[in-house]
Amino acid sequence: MITSSSNNQIKNIIQLKKKSKERNRQDVFLVEGIKMFREVPRERLEKVYVSAGFYQNPQHMQLLTNVDYEVVSDSVFDTISDTRTPQGILCLVKQFHYERKDLTKGELPLCMVLENLQDPGNLGTIFRTAEGAGVTGILLSRDSVDLYNPKVIRSTMGSVYRMPFYYADDLHAVLREWKTQGIALYAAHLKGKHTYDCEDYRKPSAFLIGNESQGLTEETASLANHYIRIPMSGQVESLNAAVAAAILMYEARRQKGT
Amino acid sequence: MITSSSNNQIKNIIQLKKKSKERNRQDVFLVEGIKMFREVPRERLEKVYVSAGFYQNPQHMQLLTNVDYEVVSDSVFDTISDTRTPQGILCLVKQFHYERKDLTKGELPLCMVLENLQDPGNLGTIFRTAEGAGVTGILLSRDSVDLYNPKVIRSTMGSVYRMPFYYADDLHAVLREWKTQGIALYAAHLKGKHTYDCEDYRKPSAFLIGNESQGLTEETASLANHYIRIPMSGQVESLNAAVAAAILMYEARRQKGT
Repeated sequence: MITSSSNNQIKNIIQLKKKSKERNRQDVFLVEGIKMFREVPRERLEKVYVSAGFYQNPQHMQLLTNVDYEVVSDSVFDTISDTRTPQGILCLVKQFHYERKDLTKGELPLCMVLENLQDPGNLGTIFRTAEGAGVTGILLSRDSVDLYNPKVIRSTMGSVYRMPFYYADDLHAVLREWKTQGIALYAAHLKGKHTYDCEDYRKPSAFLIGNESQGLTEETASLANHYIRIPMSGQVESLNAAVAAAILMYEARRQKGT
Repeated sequence: MITSSSNNQIKNIIQLKKKSKERNRQDVFLVEGIKMFREVPRERLEKVYVSAGFYQNPQHMQLLTNVDYEVVSDSVFDTISDTRTPQGILCLVKQFHYERKDLTKGELPLCMVLENLQDPGNLGTIFRTAEGAGVTGILLSRDSVDLYNPKVIRSTMGSVYRMPFYYADDLHAVLREWKTQGIALYAAHLKGKHTYDCEDYRKPSAFLIGNESQGLTEETASLANHYIRIPMSGQVESLNAAVAAAILMYEARRQKGT
């Protein structure tokens, strides 16, 4: 059992929790909790750390069959956990490496494009909702929040394992490429002429969602085929980014009647 | 200028920030930031606190015309603020007191019913989206998170000033009352027979949303006229509560074509 915070593995996990650079260098990320552990694709599971309290529960034993795990004292576990009430299980998981073409697979690609999204909860929630809505892939601008940030991972509720994504150094190049492939780009924009439900998404489509406070940059918005608007009553100036994304993704799903 | 954290007003604000009991006893709540300050109905504004840094900016002077304000040193302001990067303006605002009937006003009431909702960000986001979707009022079970929690207030983005709401000691009594008034109750439920977009919301309607992890209690769900289901692809077991609420509210709005 690891009982000291100065243990090298523990020190490394704390680094991985805080630093995206370190996560990328080691090509891993951290996930916490029983649900997130259960859903890890087994070939990606590098190592599991469980707290002494977790380990002592006989119901947890079968979870650890054929798993490379290490027991950690409860107090040391608290230092590696990113939650206030840790469930007592944390895993090191290999990062995913998708190619751009993985995002648009299938007969009817439906993609999300996120430009400079900053809030970890929003990004995770968009992944979760996207899987539910049948989105085929998520494209992110390089300056968006890191998907492997523990807060993002937690809010994906496991969708991170299943949703293809790609951070683009040149977002505009990918968008131009998609347009030549016949994917219609819809920018969620306050200046949209049509409300979102007046367009037909039963064809290859992508929704462009901008930064929480600034929205889409003019340059990115200008690449869209259509500007669409979510109507808002009262004095509401904008919707939360994850909410706006959800309304659009589920409208596309609704139109397809699936 | 207030320069000490032991000043009585400062000590009181810190209490108000932390304790719902104290907020209710004094019948006030706290709001922060320029946008939230601008939108406070003037008759509810009790007192404004600005940081020295905020006060020194000449552009901020006109904001404070006819306002009862107090300047606070930057370091003391940090102790009363609930954000990491305070904008430097915090207000004491009188609480709202709606009656049940305020929630169902107008020809076509559209209500949200939240049972034991716990996440502050979810509640605030639901208020914001509800205003945008044209919801007429929000009913909450008494055990839901406190609307006047500073995190909730922040995520409402001002909708708290405009959306009628009511915490019910007996949620079921209100739901029964609404049913006799002809308001159709729709429970968002995994066991729903119909998908949410198969129902007609162009009549008095209310959506029932449950706790983030447990969903609706059986007892509350049993009062609904209809169970509805949001379809989910992949391995998604549920959607975030604010996302599910948004999809339903905007489907109602879409059907009305407003």
